[in-house]
Order: sequence, then structure tokens, then C-alpha cells
Amino acid sequence: MRADAERRTAVIDLGSNTFRLVVFTAEPGVWWRRTDEIYEPVRIGAGMAEGGPLKPKRMQRALDTLEMYAHFCRAAGLDPADVRPVATSAIREASNRDEFVARARKLAGLKVRVLSREEEARYGYLAAVNSTTLDHGAVLDLGGGSLQLVRVDHRLAQESGSWRLGTVRMTEAYLDDEPATKKQLKALRAHAREALADAPWLATSGDRLVGLGGTVRNLAAAAQHRAGLPSFGVQGFVLTREALGELTSELAALPARERRAVPGVKPERGDVILAGAATLEAVLEAGGFETVEVTEEGLREGVFFAEHLAPADPPLFPAVREASVRNLASQHQVDLIHANHVAALALQMYDALAAGGVHGGDTAERELLAAAGLLHDVGYAVDYDDHHRHSRYLILNAGLPGWTPREVALIAQLARYHRKGTPGFGELAPLMEDGDDERLARGAALLRIAEQLERSRDQSVRETRLTVQDGTVRLGLVAAGDVSVARWAAERHAELFEAAFDRRLEIAAEDAG
Amino acid sequence: MRADAERRTAVIDLGSNTFRLVVFTAEPGVWWRRTDEIYEPVRIGAGMAEGGPLKPKRMQRALDTLEMYAHFCRAAGLDPADVRPVATSAIREASNRDEFVARARKLAGLKVRVLSREEEARYGYLAAVNSTTLDHGAVLDLGGGSLQLVRVDHRLAQESGSWRLGTVRMTEAYLDDEPATKKQLKALRAHAREALADAPWLATSGDRLVGLGGTVRNLAAAAQHRAGLPSFGVQGFVLTREALGELTSELAALPARERRAVPGVKPERGDVILAGAATLEAVLEAGGFETVEVTEEGLREGVFFAEHLAPADPPLFPAVREASVRNLASQHQVDLIHANHVAALALQMYDALAAGGVHGGDTAERELLAAAGLLHDVGYAVDYDDHHRHSRYLILNAGLPGWTPREVALIAQLARYHRKGTPGFGELAPLMEDGDDERLARGAALLRIAEQLERSRDQSVRETRLTVQDGTVRLGLVAAGDVSVARWAAERHAELFEAAFDRRLEIAAEDAG
Repeated sequence: MRADAERRTAVIDLGSNTFRLVVFTAEPGVWWRRTDEIYEPVRIGAGMAEGGPLKPKRMQRALDTLEMYAHFCRAAGLDPADVRPVATSAIREASNRDEFVARARKLAGLKVRVLSREEEARYGYLAAVNSTTLDHGAVLDLGGGSLQLVRVDHRLAQESGSWRLGTVRMTEAYLDDEPATKKQLKALRAHAREALADAPWLATSGDRLVGLGGTVRNLAAAAQHRAGLPSFGVQGFVLTREALGELTSELAALPARERRAVPGVKPERGDVILAGAATLEAVLEAGGFETVEVTEEGLREGVFFAEHLAPADPPLFPAVREASVRNLASQHQVDLIHANHVAALALQMYDALAAGGVHGGDTAERELLAAAGLLHDVGYAVDYDDHHRHSRYLILNAGLPGWTPREVALIAQLARYHRKGTPGFGELAPLMEDGDDERLARGAALLRIAEQLERSRDQSVRETRLTVQDGTVRLGLVAAGDVSVARWAAERHAELFEAAFDRRLEIAAEDAG
Repeated sequence: MRADAERRTAVIDLGSNTFRLVVFTAEPGVWWRRTDEIYEPVRIGAGMAEGGPLKPKRMQRALDTLEMYAHFCRAAGLDPADVRPVATSAIREASNRDEFVARARKLAGLKVRVLSREEEARYGYLAAVNSTTLDHGAVLDLGGGSLQLVRVDHRLAQESGSWRLGTVRMTEAYLDDEPATKKQLKALRAHAREALADAPWLATSGDRLVGLGGTVRNLAAAAQHRAGLPSFGVQGFVLTREALGELTSELAALPARERRAVPGVKPERGDVILAGAATLEAVLEAGGFETVEVTEEGLREGVFFAEHLAPADPPLFPAVREASVRNLASQHQVDLIHANHVAALALQMYDALAAGGVHGGDTAERELLAAAGLLHDVGYAVDYDDHHRHSRYLILNAGLPGWTPREVALIAQLARYHRKGTPGFGELAPLMEDGDDERLARGAALLRIAEQLERSRDQSVRETRLTVQDGTVRLGLVAAGDVSVARWAAERHAELFEAAFDRRLEIAAEDAG
């Protein structure tokens, strides 16, 4: 993996709640991934009055942590020029921030860059728009110190604001260690709504809200667990207002120390999770949003993307879903020529079957098929035996930003069934919607035929000419040379096709003319 | 993956039951793996009288299959010089074998090499000794046409024989489509024992018998299933005489067409599996073996190893267990310097704790710890997040020749718990033995401390000096430079250590003197 083309960047996020060091490794333009991460719940913003100083004990803990991070970076061989320490609201607003920055420089040798409100909001925006399909809507980044909101139109940031509504602050201002009273929560929400009144654009930014930050991730994980859904992370999870409301009630009924035991909530976040839930409710209400779409990426990825995608301005992936599929394929050295050709053959058959009236044809289904085509062999990275199962595992576990959990599950199952087995969802069934069984059956059948046509991995079957007549689908193979292997291989898998499309399949050589 | 150093070899095994094409990819001296495989149940030996010709219909099917394989090899860009077609007993003994070989050459362009009995036995031996720890015992390779046995001493082949006791032949001679009678099975076993009487060395070849071939693999899978054991393949599975006896009875009670539905038995092998089971029983009896150790490797790997390990003579891995661990690590680009250092630190602590009387110290346990140390980060190849879980997945699914399923499970769980979580076996529990909970607790604790000492991945903690006094273990760190990160990181994981060894852990810097 340590090719010459690889580059490592460390981002240190000095958040109000948590300090986090993330190392990104990338081959620019090809793939990127997180390769290391350490975090420490420093709580630098705890006990800080508005406009007051960082508390001495907190500052000391923060400096100790930074010293340790700096040591980690040196020891890991990271070039100091590739380390990006950035500080957010708690430090930005502390009266002794200059002292802190100077001591961090002296003790740890780190040049901490204190982000302005606008910069902080912008990095959150970059993370959101680069990990979701958001084109029109809003981005929420809820931290320990502050809340950032950005209005997005045509994928561009239009307006933004930052409020002192972070979870640590709101907890200290409105809640105590006991179960929360209705009165406390009401006061908290009222304060948040009032503060948000100076962002009238929020209510007109459309239907979609994307949420970032540890609190949002934990709330999504808890809601996912309550709903009995299988979980492979919360990337793309859609948290509804109703589910959030139920979760808030559950958390409010518990004393603070017991909230950390709610499944999905991390222990170190247990005491501030309720304030976060209630604040999020207030934002949904103020903006008229029915849901919040969760992304696992955040400020750190924003800082990374700003460099990784430069000189693009703004630094955005042209198409997030495609980028994440390609990123996963490239990380695992998928044979892209073969994979692209399998996808192309499957899509060609898909379109011809739609044109022949065999099925309706659907853009979203088509897109899933294309993604599964590109990723069907990614499991080779684990082992040849059962590589179809390993493809499923890699897709589910690595996740695909831009796709919902249901879509990731569909792509994973399509890859799972590209070689053998009777398509089904198994433990993933709770994620699926009406019609998904048929989508999986169609896609798996096409992928399997396409894979067999490309069994020799040399693109010798250049294209297919598919015609539908009564109960029969005739699949003509346009090939450079002999099609005997391709035809033999594909015919062995005709059954799945015939079941999925309720048509007999005939495969024949076609003149290339 | 397609580095310049990589080399591909295709082996085509023209077996009496199945024709199988396997592509091996290797970076010589670094790693090897199967990267493609197709098979076809040709049954070329079916209906063949002793000394008679291959039946025309079978020959035609065989030639069609070879033509298709040859096409596959060309299309996949394999150099014809790297394709190795080898034929075994059915073809070797056919009266029209020269005609078959000539037609294969003409039609498919393949120069089929007909193996002598000795060569066939030798390739099976190479597969067995390169995928198990067998040093003294016997190797059994049960095919459709013949049975090969090799006596092994000091890992070297000493004597060998080949008998016309293959599963297709024995089925045709002794069984029909109905449930088998006791009389039929008795006659089959008596014939086998009688034939084996000309190998008196079998009964004196020691306690260990290693079994190869599809029939043995299927019997192992069926026994594994009957015992309710979790399965990640049958590599290293130990099939006892008792379990084999029960399985034989179950199979005998069914008509032939229903045997294919017994879990673990492949449909295309259902009609010959019973004859195989009974023949295997006869071998165990004749040789006085209580068990047969199963390996998934076979003739094909033998042919491959003969080249891959040349010029070593005989072409054997010096140490199979170590080779398979290293093979898996190398396939996934593990950072070997880091992984070796983690293993070394863990072993250093393990030994010092044994010297201090904290635990007994055990060679086998130590070896598991070393393997887990080398493989703990192999899951990086999947994703950074949860890479400990991915390490477990890769280890379980790729398998480790030379280790039993229980040992592979232990290595996988040690890797799983090198970062977080409370060690346990979960679904793997049925594989485990008394004391394995403690082995896992000790190993996971040491691996976790070692990993944290090497958190910066720069070997800055060069070694540990561990002393035991009353209820306290003092761990001195000998380091080049500052040990603050290492100590901080390791201290966060002291709890697991303290629980596993029932001692308090104190970590301190040590003079390098």
C-alpha cells in the first residue's frame, strides 16, 4: 500500500468536546481513506463562561493531549508540513485563546489555526456535500461549543451562521444530572428557536437537512437500534422527527449518568446527548424539516477535502455516489477494465429489456446495478474462494457515502449474488422496501449473465444485442472471435434470468456487422 | 495487485471425476494464492472397464471441456508455457489414452501430461506436507479413479502406492441407486482392505493420516455440519473414525439421489460419496488410524508447489504454519516491521510473566500469540474503522493451512481483541477447548499492551523489562527517546491486563543501559 504516489495528511480537530487526530492516506485523484485515528474527550469548553477564559485544568489537559498528538505525528513519520491542527468555537471564543495557541506552539510545536465561524461552517459544508447527494437544502454541524448551519443551493454554500448552541454549553445552561423535566427541555428548545430566529433563510432552504457531528451520529445509531435495523454505521441514515422525538423522551426520562447506557450512545457523550437531541429538534422545527440525513464525515474530512480536491473550487467531488464506489474499487485494486465492462454489459441488457417491455426500467435501479457491476469483484481482496461473499462484506463495512443504508445493502447483495446462490436479503431485510426483492432478482440475474459473458476477462464479448419476442429473450453476442466460453458460461446461469424476467433465454453468436 | 513481480500459473487437473482449472498467482518467495477456478464434473472414468477404453461420450465431453479451458487460458492472457494440464488414473489406464492425448493436443492445443502412479502420489504428498504439520504419518488422496497412499517420515515421502479404489469405480462395482445394504458395504470394505494388504507399511506409518480430495472435503464438511460446528472451510478439520462411521450409516440409509442433499455434500458428488466414505473407513482400519486430518489442498497445489518452491528439493515450505501466516500478511500488505515488533513485544512480556510465575507458559499458546501479532492489523485492507473486526474476518475466511479450525479461531479472536472489546468466542465457542478462555484473555491483553506500546509504529519502544513483585507487574519501557505516547496509550488498556493476570500493572520508562 505504501506506494510512492501515496500521501498522508493528519488533521487535528480541537473541538469543544473532543480532540481528535485523524490521518488520511490518499493517492490523489485515485482513492483516499482514513488510516488512523485517536481521540480524547478533553472537554476544553467545559465550565467556560461566555467571553471568559478556558479553565486552567482544561487547558492543561488540552496541552497534554496536543503534546501526545505531536509526538504521535513525529513518530509516525508525518511531515510537520502535513499536519493541520484546527480549533473551533470554544477556543475561538476564549478570552485566553492567544495564550493557549502560544503554549500549544511552544510545548507541542503545533501551529494551531483557530477557525473563524465562517471557516468552521465551510468545512462542515464541504464534508456534507462531499458525502451526500445534497444539492439544495441545509447542513447542520452540531458540536460541543457551537451549532453551524449552512444553506446550500446547487451544491454551493449560500448563507451560514454559527450559534452558541453546542451540546456542552446547552447541557450546562439548561440541564442537571437528574431526569430532565418538561420545563427544562421547553426552556432549552425555546432558547434555541429564539437564537435561530436570526437565520430566516433556514425555513426557506428546502426539504433536506444533512447533519454532522458526534451527537448526530450517536442519535442516529440509537434510533437505528431502537428500530431494530441492522447496522453497518450510520452513513446516509435518515433520522425522522418522530424517531428523534421518541428518543428524546427516552433520554429525558433517565438521569444523566444512565444515558450513556442507551445503545448507540457513546459513554463519553452520555451526559450531553440529551441537550443535543433537544437542540436538533429545535432546528428541525425552526427549519420545517421532517428528517435529518446523517453523514459520518465532519469538519476533519472538510479540512482534508479542501486540499485533496484542490484546485477544484469549491473542492467538491463531481458526483459523490460514483466517487465513493470508485474509491472503494480503487482501494482494493479492482480490475477496472473488467468491472466496467461487466457493468456496461449488464446495463445494456437492462436497457434492452426495458425497451422490449419486459420491465419498467428505472433510473435508481439502473444506478444500483452500475455500482454493483463496478464492485462485484472487490472481495477478491479477501480471498478467491467465496469472493462474492467477501464483496458483500467489504461493501457493507466500508460504506459508500452518498448512498442510503438500503442502497448500500442492495449493492452489497447484488455483488453477493453475481456468482451463485438464490438472491435474498437475509438479515438486511428490515432495511428493504417494497419491490426490492424484484430489483435484486433482476439485477443479480443480469450481473451474473454479464459476469459469465466476461468470464475470460478480456472483453471478447464486446456487446450484446437483445431482442424480446413473446416468451423468449434472444441474447446475441457481438464478439471478437470465438464466443464458446462466454456462451457456455452464460447458459449455465440462464435459470436465474428466466426466473427474474419470466422469459426463456436464448444465447447466440451475432455478426459483428 | 498486478505488479511486475507477479506470475500466474494455470494447472488443469483432468481427474477421473472432475476436470478443474485453477489459476495461481504468486510473487515468488513472498505470497501465493488461487485467483481463479472453474470446474466441470466430466466423469471421464465413468463406465470404464479395467483396461478398457474411455467411453466415446465421456471422451467428447472431456475434449469439449478442454477446448473451453484452453480458450479461457488464452483469453485470460496466460502464457501457454504457464499452463500445466495433468491427467490421473482414469486416463492413465485407458486403452485409448494416446488417442485422447493426441486429440486434446489437436483440438485444444494442450499438451496433457499423463502422470504415472508415482507422480500422482507425489503431487498429493507435496500438497499434504505443504498444508499441514505432518512430519511422520501417511497421506491419502482419494479420487474418482484411484486411491493413493504415501508414507511420510521426517516430512519426506518414503513409500507410496496407488489402488483402483476411486469413488466412481467403487460405486459402479459395489453400489446401486438404492439405500446400501450391510452386505454391499461389507463387500466394498473387504475388497478395499484386501487390496491394501500389499502395503504393509501402512500399519506402521504412525498415528497421523492426512486426507486430500473432494470426497474427503465433502465428508469433513458433512461431519462438521452434523456436529453443529461453525464452518469457515474444512482446512485442518480432524475427522474421527466415530464421526465417519455415523456419517456412513446416515448416507447408506438414503437412496443415492438423496445423498446429494446431505448438508456438506456437493450435489455432483452425491452419488459417489458413500463409496468414498466406506473406502476411507477401510483405510483407517487397515492403517490403525483413529482420525484423518483434512486439507483443502490437493494434486493441483502439488503441481503448483513443485514449481513455486523450486529449486528447494523436495519443494517444501520450511515451516508450514509460519508460511501460511506470512502468506496472508503479505497478500494484504501488512506493515511487517510494525507487526513483527508488536509480536516481539507481546512475546517478551509473555515469557517474562511465565518466568515470574504469573502463568505456566506454553509453547502452543506462544505460537498462537506470535501468529496473531503478525496478523493483528491485516484488516486494514478492508477499512480503518473496525479493522480489528476485519482482521478476524480475513483470518477466518482466508484460512491458515497448518493450523486447526480451533487454532485459526483463536488467532482470529486474538486479532479481534487487540484494540477493544471484552474477549470472548461468540459463535466460535463450539470449536474451543478447556482453558481457551484464559488463553484468549492472556493473549488479547498482551497484544493490546504491545499494540499500544507500538502505537506510533516506529519501534520507539525497543523492548520491555518486566518484573513481578507480589501483586504488581512492573513494565519498564526501554525506548529511543520519549515514551510518553506509548505509556499513555498502554495505561489506558491496563484493565484487561490486570483482569487476565490478576496483577496490578505499573508502566514506567527504563534506562536503555
